[in-house]
Amino acid sequence: MWTIQRTHWCGELRPKHVGAEVGLNGWVHRRRDLGDLIFIDLRDRTGLIQLVFDPSISEEAHAAAKEVRSEYVLAVRGKVVARTPETVNPNLATGEVEVQVHAVEVVNAAKTPPFVLDDRAEVDESVRLKYRYLDLRRPVLQRTLMLRHRAAKAFRDFLDAQGFVEIETPMLTRSTPEGARDYLVPSRVHPGQFYALPQSPQLFKQLLMVAGFERYYQIVRCFRDEDLRADRQPEFTQVDIETSFLRAEQIQELVEALIAYVWKETIGVDVPRPFPRLSYQEAMDRYGTDKPDIRFGLELKDVSDIAAACQFQVFRRAVEAGGRVQALNAKGCAGFSRKEIAAYEEEAKRHGAKGLAYLARTAEGWKGPIAKFFTEGELAALAERLEAEPGDLLFFCADQAEVVAAVLGNLRLKLGRERGLIPDNAFAFLWVVDFPLLTYDEEEGRFVANHHPFTMPREEDIPLFDTDPARIRAQAYDLVCNGYEIAGGSIRIHRRDVQEKMFRVLGFTEEQAREKFGFLLEAFEYGTPPHGGIAFGFDRVVMLLAGRSNLRETIAFPKTTSAADLMVGAPSEVDPKQLEELRIAVVDEARAAR
Amino acid sequence: MWTIQRTHWCGELRPKHVGAEVGLNGWVHRRRDLGDLIFIDLRDRTGLIQLVFDPSISEEAHAAAKEVRSEYVLAVRGKVVARTPETVNPNLATGEVEVQVHAVEVVNAAKTPPFVLDDRAEVDESVRLKYRYLDLRRPVLQRTLMLRHRAAKAFRDFLDAQGFVEIETPMLTRSTPEGARDYLVPSRVHPGQFYALPQSPQLFKQLLMVAGFERYYQIVRCFRDEDLRADRQPEFTQVDIETSFLRAEQIQELVEALIAYVWKETIGVDVPRPFPRLSYQEAMDRYGTDKPDIRFGLELKDVSDIAAACQFQVFRRAVEAGGRVQALNAKGCAGFSRKEIAAYEEEAKRHGAKGLAYLARTAEGWKGPIAKFFTEGELAALAERLEAEPGDLLFFCADQAEVVAAVLGNLRLKLGRERGLIPDNAFAFLWVVDFPLLTYDEEEGRFVANHHPFTMPREEDIPLFDTDPARIRAQAYDLVCNGYEIAGGSIRIHRRDVQEKMFRVLGFTEEQAREKFGFLLEAFEYGTPPHGGIAFGFDRVVMLLAGRSNLRETIAFPKTTSAADLMVGAPSEVDPKQLEELRIAVVDEARAAR
Repeated sequence: MWTIQRTHWCGELRPKHVGAEVGLNGWVHRRRDLGDLIFIDLRDRTGLIQLVFDPSISEEAHAAAKEVRSEYVLAVRGKVVARTPETVNPNLATGEVEVQVHAVEVVNAAKTPPFVLDDRAEVDESVRLKYRYLDLRRPVLQRTLMLRHRAAKAFRDFLDAQGFVEIETPMLTRSTPEGARDYLVPSRVHPGQFYALPQSPQLFKQLLMVAGFERYYQIVRCFRDEDLRADRQPEFTQVDIETSFLRAEQIQELVEALIAYVWKETIGVDVPRPFPRLSYQEAMDRYGTDKPDIRFGLELKDVSDIAAACQFQVFRRAVEAGGRVQALNAKGCAGFSRKEIAAYEEEAKRHGAKGLAYLARTAEGWKGPIAKFFTEGELAALAERLEAEPGDLLFFCADQAEVVAAVLGNLRLKLGRERGLIPDNAFAFLWVVDFPLLTYDEEEGRFVANHHPFTMPREEDIPLFDTDPARIRAQAYDLVCNGYEIAGGSIRIHRRDVQEKMFRVLGFTEEQAREKFGFLLEAFEYGTPPHGGIAFGFDRVVMLLAGRSNLRETIAFPKTTSAADLMVGAPSEVDPKQLEELRIAVVDEARAAR
Repeated sequence: MWTIQRTHWCGELRPKHVGAEVGLNGWVHRRRDLGDLIFIDLRDRTGLIQLVFDPSISEEAHAAAKEVRSEYVLAVRGKVVARTPETVNPNLATGEVEVQVHAVEVVNAAKTPPFVLDDRAEVDESVRLKYRYLDLRRPVLQRTLMLRHRAAKAFRDFLDAQGFVEIETPMLTRSTPEGARDYLVPSRVHPGQFYALPQSPQLFKQLLMVAGFERYYQIVRCFRDEDLRADRQPEFTQVDIETSFLRAEQIQELVEALIAYVWKETIGVDVPRPFPRLSYQEAMDRYGTDKPDIRFGLELKDVSDIAAACQFQVFRRAVEAGGRVQALNAKGCAGFSRKEIAAYEEEAKRHGAKGLAYLARTAEGWKGPIAKFFTEGELAALAERLEAEPGDLLFFCADQAEVVAAVLGNLRLKLGRERGLIPDNAFAFLWVVDFPLLTYDEEEGRFVANHHPFTMPREEDIPLFDTDPARIRAQAYDLVCNGYEIAGGSIRIHRRDVQEKMFRVLGFTEEQAREKFGFLLEAFEYGTPPHGGIAFGFDRVVMLLAGRSNLRETIAFPKTTSAADLMVGAPSEVDPKQLEELRIAVVDEARAAR
């Protein structure tokens, strides 16, 4: 039983506390034994305070302090004293004071941790994940999770004040035919049947609009059993929002106010509004991506017209084959070495380019292997189009539009990063709108919905269902910040006639539609209001707010890229009795049993 | 495309709005066609407003109103006018005004709902659950879910202000050997292995204390694959709280302040503090249950001493066999008919009684089949013990202590309900403490932990591990309100020596302990603070706040007692390809394939 109770937090002690008798509880962060004096930095959630163990104050406490090691749990009583000017530690919030310890209790001992609990320590991530409970003691992870808490609170406070109701939707739900791969949960009560964990509460939030709640939100766990990339997790958190009787622009305005509130409340940053809007086509043309990082310029320019007329066959043929030629102006890079250019060429090839053409404009004129293919007039036209001045380097890509976008979009990012074009601590939000509603799937020989089959087309594009479905624009909108898509949403179809056109263009018969979306279609017949919403990737929002670059640093107990929890050891084998009760078998075992 | 936008909510219109031109969006709640005038009650989330369609104001709107039916979605523009005194509707918040409609748009049509959307309508629950999106339009469900939202917000606001950090823990985790049955999730990436959905974040919250977060909470979904009773759901919501460096009494004090805050914020009720505390033994002795409803008295009295001496053999033998005799005084029930007594006897038998002995005290003396077995002195002693006055009826139960408790505990509740002893709108909170740490499991031939193997015993009981483990009291506490356990918690073991004693008494070898709780035990070696917490059943809290008697009314999309979602049709069969990818087979199919 420990008896010394906390009267103060370690991190709060200041000169105004000098003379106070305090009780502190916490962990030994560092210990220095100078023989006569022992110093211990005691740590709790709020920070560090220096303890002094002086045998002339308490021999007993000094003797106890001799035995403690890093990460021991202590309860101490002592007096706050001012440090002498030369021992003040300006790097520590509590650095002007220290605590002279009168009494100490060793509440718990600790083995030496497998790694130093320090943000600077370079330790293999798998070791960190196995000992996540120790890694979480690191200040940066503590701060990030506290920030995550404040961000969730800010979202909730704002939405609550705007009349939104948080409503919990089921985790054990039904597997749906479209979308990503579901995680399944076998039912014991209904053998041979399965629940699915939700990929998003999409259907439920639409049904809540049918039910008349009008303004719903939820901070909710979602699941996708996909092969994971570095920035994906099998379970992730979404801020899910749906409204009735609002138009796309009204939802966007509300979201902008929400973002401004969250950024201000959590990190004190003022976000200017309104956010710029780019159509999908414009984003692709100017940045080569539908989630452009507009913290810096360096836009792509189309030079297909010039290229079509020039003597460089690669360019001409690309245009003739229905492709395009675009270029980037790498300001001040005319002096790039062969090696530097090779690195960009490699990046270009990684994204599908066959090669990387370039032109350097120098004080002595144009240089580079392809300079000879251009007339003076063409070079002047290029210089004007790309605002190229002496010292600049132009990169070109000539290919089908998608390849050009991928190649130059990524070269742009690489240049932005490596040439220091991206300002620190800047947040550049924008809306990307007017996504195509449909994409023609060559393999399936039919149109497929780019978002989902309930996304509303723009009113004026509805006639295109009968003439040119590929040109229909969706009432869909993505919120992009610093090159990340942080939210996506749309207005949903609430009109039966539009829904029928949609199903027809997707190639569904009425029966197929019923089979796939039966209960939702039935619900839509009982007085569905116009509705639409948006969903934020909350982990990513936290990553941006915290200035981190890895989603795993925003999650208390993340999984690896092979969807494993190294700390608890999940997934794992289970007791065969459990499978028997569920009446399922692992297939290899089932085979062996034959 | 509808064009008339909402300027006001239906439910907010008052005499001060008279003369205003308003835009309203909502549903047709009721429609009365008086030929020249048509009245429609338009409904949105906030309530109802009466619309008047007068052909002399707009022929077009009147003609449109002729065609609309219940649950159509309308957008209307009109002018707020005062009702004449004789047409004021005092039952409606907006009943002093109505809206003269100038223009109406039918935003969406509706089929006739399968049941009337009215709190009074008696409809089979399975129909309601299938059309949950319509049932949710009923005012009582709307109100309950709004209240649920406010309750969650109140919990969060209070805990946030007290320095608690909400931290999300994994849903895809590891199956644990103790506790209820887990829901399993097959892993595709690791064939033959499974995740489990959490029964509670118990291990994670303890690890967050090891990590130094000190004050954690989470409103979190939990899962138990148990056979369901009327008041259980396979997925349920918990308010999960854990703290470091606090003692049981400090946690309880904090929880009392939390409850007072939530009750005040959500339903405006002042909850007196501190809450009474009863030991487990006292609760069992006085109320026959560990979750007593103390909104009313009617306590059980032990009369074993009188019974042991009397001539009624049933009583004497029960005491001689190590059992007890307890009694209840049903005030004013001496006049119960044979039929009334039979109903109580049946209730007693349902809970294990062999019969129900009773004595009526009347103005003429004691009546009842067993009266003759008692001397005047014994009757006087009973009268004194039970404060029995003429007009009272005493019920007796003589059996082993558990049976007596179950029988009289339930008779007490039945009497409380049927005799009107329970005050309306009262909330009677209490703590039940000092639960036994262990129970001897005759079947397994060993002690098992009543809560979990990490529950801390009372300090002064630790020596009993070596002498009389059954008498060890746990540092565990349940919060009870109106006969429901709404929260349960404990101080956890953080000392290695106590943990070892605990494992030893449970019959685990060191290897078995490591196998079952390996990573947690390892974590405990790196500086674990003293810690403890509590978890609320949030669905039940909402049920109490809303004054409902069924958990399903507090959940937007609940499951049936066979764990089915009748609306989406879950669980369901899935595409065989999905099972192939997971390398599992339904066993009956696997057999058929052999």
